[in-house]
Amino acid sequence: MIKKMNKKTCTVFYVSDGTGITAETVGHSLITQFTGIEFNETRIPFVDSVEKAELAAQMIANTPSDFQPLVINTVVDESLRKIIHSGGGLKLDPFNRLLRRIERNLGIERDPGVGRAHGISDKNNYDARMEATNFALSHDDGVSLNYAQADLILLGVSRSGKTPTCLYLALHYGLKAANYPITDDDLEFMRLPKEVMEHKNKLFGLTIDPFRLSQIRSERRPNSRYAELRKCQTEVSDAESIYHRNQIQFLSTTHTSIEEISGKIMVELGLNRRLY
Amino acid sequence: MIKKMNKKTCTVFYVSDGTGITAETVGHSLITQFTGIEFNETRIPFVDSVEKAELAAQMIANTPSDFQPLVINTVVDESLRKIIHSGGGLKLDPFNRLLRRIERNLGIERDPGVGRAHGISDKNNYDARMEATNFALSHDDGVSLNYAQADLILLGVSRSGKTPTCLYLALHYGLKAANYPITDDDLEFMRLPKEVMEHKNKLFGLTIDPFRLSQIRSERRPNSRYAELRKCQTEVSDAESIYHRNQIQFLSTTHTSIEEISGKIMVELGLNRRLY
Repeated sequence: MIKKMNKKTCTVFYVSDGTGITAETVGHSLITQFTGIEFNETRIPFVDSVEKAELAAQMIANTPSDFQPLVINTVVDESLRKIIHSGGGLKLDPFNRLLRRIERNLGIERDPGVGRAHGISDKNNYDARMEATNFALSHDDGVSLNYAQADLILLGVSRSGKTPTCLYLALHYGLKAANYPITDDDLEFMRLPKEVMEHKNKLFGLTIDPFRLSQIRSERRPNSRYAELRKCQTEVSDAESIYHRNQIQFLSTTHTSIEEISGKIMVELGLNRRLY
Repeated sequence: MIKKMNKKTCTVFYVSDGTGITAETVGHSLITQFTGIEFNETRIPFVDSVEKAELAAQMIANTPSDFQPLVINTVVDESLRKIIHSGGGLKLDPFNRLLRRIERNLGIERDPGVGRAHGISDKNNYDARMEATNFALSHDDGVSLNYAQADLILLGVSRSGKTPTCLYLALHYGLKAANYPITDDDLEFMRLPKEVMEHKNKLFGLTIDPFRLSQIRSERRPNSRYAELRKCQTEVSDAESIYHRNQIQFLSTTHTSIEEISGKIMVELGLNRRLY
């Protein structure tokens, strides 16, 4: 066996006075552009007091790293920021410079008290999200075929990724996403029920590589006919025929993340987010 | 009636060669720090060709705005970036400067081909997400009390926010989040079933303002005893007693977003994300 070469490691801290989601999203985007180094990421959220800032500084100072640690810091309070950076580390602030440019453009100063994007609980957002989540759950897997309220209806064979995509669209964008499983009956007659076809402009199909599908199904029901490669190949090919025949747009989930699938569906169907 | 004063508007574009999620997260964080101006946000994702870049430039040039439009641009390809910015607008790049500083720190150059954080489909991520989503669905609302595999178990009365929080934790962090509804039976005897109490270190409680709860329940079942304020007050107060009595940590979902609830639960239970 070839011994795996030890990669150098670099620690990364996402420090925030809120959830740290924004700092993490930005930081993760940055470090994925560097290959050959192992990044050890730590999120330090809710740093809103001197004690917590000192704790963060200690963590930064004491965690081993082959490079100066990267510190993505989105804490707004200047005195807390100073404490955090007393722990050393490369200061990376994705916001300050951009905020100053926006201030100049708008001719007003920002209001530092309102900056926590993910901490603001907005009743309308909450309601839209709840409603969309409940809708996704009650319209999962063809349980209800009442699609009048649906923003979209995802089609696909069993285990092609319909449910997680619908839930993602509901939680992230407040969209009412139903899904309808293409079953043996539909495949045999090469058509979809009229409840589905009545909403043709809301339909979007998912497909998947049959080998991957067989693998996923095997994890669920090992050695079943359901998981057999032959069966998966036939189902996927028939489902794609149904999409072609009915001019339903579709995409493959095999090499695509849920974020990207969701984004593409929204572009193709012309849907906008209902919440932040 | 008092005529509402017309706020000045500023258009904001999130332009990306991927889903645009990162650009949007950053941009939205920035503009929420400015009050008194109405921002009209447009995401332009998957800009990966000259044609799409030209279309983006046209949109930027032609959309009405009282200020120079803000353009948060995370497209990597330099020639496409130039085309996009030919549409005018204030260029806001959250990454370039930070990337150069990280390059200097690490002593290597970034690999521009691998930068799409949300486009990378990683089999392990996919599997973790699917497994966690299926777990949340099969362990929703006390359907299964088999908690050996659970990372956490959320408690709360009906409509306190358990299900969306579990699904969010599954989709975002790959955590296996079960939830158990505190029902009249539990409240009457002021205790929880042994299947739940056996996993005390995984328990976390949700609570909610009874007025808000009554409002949420009324939307679901108007004029029901279930939605009555008195009933909601008793249930919430009894649920909180159960938490206190059993030393179960809890928080209120009334003024807290799902992102923040999730973040706090992870900190309190010492859980780390299983996926990006």
